[in-house]
Amino acid sequence: MQDYLVKPIGVVRSNYKEASLTLQDQDLKLNWKILTRTKSNKGGISELIIKEEYKDCLDGIEDFSHIVVLYWAHRINDEKRYVTKVHPAGRKEYPLVGIFATRSPARPNPICTTTVQLLERKENILKVKSLDAIDGSPIIDIKFHHPSYDAPPNAKWPDWMKELINYFREELK
Amino acid sequence: MQDYLVKPIGVVRSNYKEASLTLQDQDLKLNWKILTRTKSNKGGISELIIKEEYKDCLDGIEDFSHIVVLYWAHRINDEKRYVTKVHPAGRKEYPLVGIFATRSPARPNPICTTTVQLLERKENILKVKSLDAIDGSPIIDIKFHHPSYDAPPNAKWPDWMKELINYFREELK
Repeated sequence: MQDYLVKPIGVVRSNYKEASLTLQDQDLKLNWKILTRTKSNKGGISELIIKEEYKDCLDGIEDFSHIVVLYWAHRINDEKRYVTKVHPAGRKEYPLVGIFATRSPARPNPICTTTVQLLERKENILKVKSLDAIDGSPIIDIKFHHPSYDAPPNAKWPDWMKELINYFREELK
Repeated sequence: MQDYLVKPIGVVRSNYKEASLTLQDQDLKLNWKILTRTKSNKGGISELIIKEEYKDCLDGIEDFSHIVVLYWAHRINDEKRYVTKVHPAGRKEYPLVGIFATRSPARPNPICTTTVQLLERKENILKVKSLDAIDGSPIIDIKFHHPSYDAPPNAKWPDWMKELINYFREELK
């Protein structure tokens, strides 16, 4: 199978200079301070600066409240792309799971898909809320979000995921 | 900004040989017969054959009912990557919108993100339901689906999207 070339369509501008989830000593490490800043209601506004040549490709996106942003986790070097298993959020009390059973940016193809609220479009610039991409991240795609595509009814997940979500909710209160 | 190389982690095996949504004469064209076959309850089972070297990366994925599959729409040639605006589902009664306000596979980086039900995992093979990828599509990533990541509450969308979803529901009954 051949490889494929991804050409960035734009770049993320954000005050967020360091990732909240990083790979250290072959496992994930979560920085709560950064995560809280990105996800809190007060902060977490980023700009997606789309290249002029793709500006018209955005027409109509402003009619959706939420979009899916695909970006390349450009700080993930080749070595980090080949980590196989990690503890979710770096918490050793959770089972060691394969990287595809996580949303870690360190993965064979370090593409993150993050669904965010679209606050405003001005020409080639989208203002969004709670994007987890650091400043300078190359954007590789933008899609509308719609539940019929992205939110199947009756989804189920393992216990560690339930615990993790509860833990996040408590900490981000 | 530099380009990035995507290395397929596996391949889709499916009876589905032609895409339901294609680009013809600079606009989208929807093939209902194919869409119905893929989306119906009777059909639409595909296998994701993951390369042996990434087998362990799947550990734990079987505990999720739904996964997000990223695949490369490999039939989209360079010319089709530069179409700017289309009619959603090729229906001229809908407004002409930018390609980022659609889920068309023809886009600058032809990466599709499709959320599917995971029926079974056997070693390096995942059996999934209703994947819209044609046979032979290169898989570039797999992630768990969880509403906290992928299903924001209170999402909104334009009227054409509402009409399109109603139209799909009627036709797929």
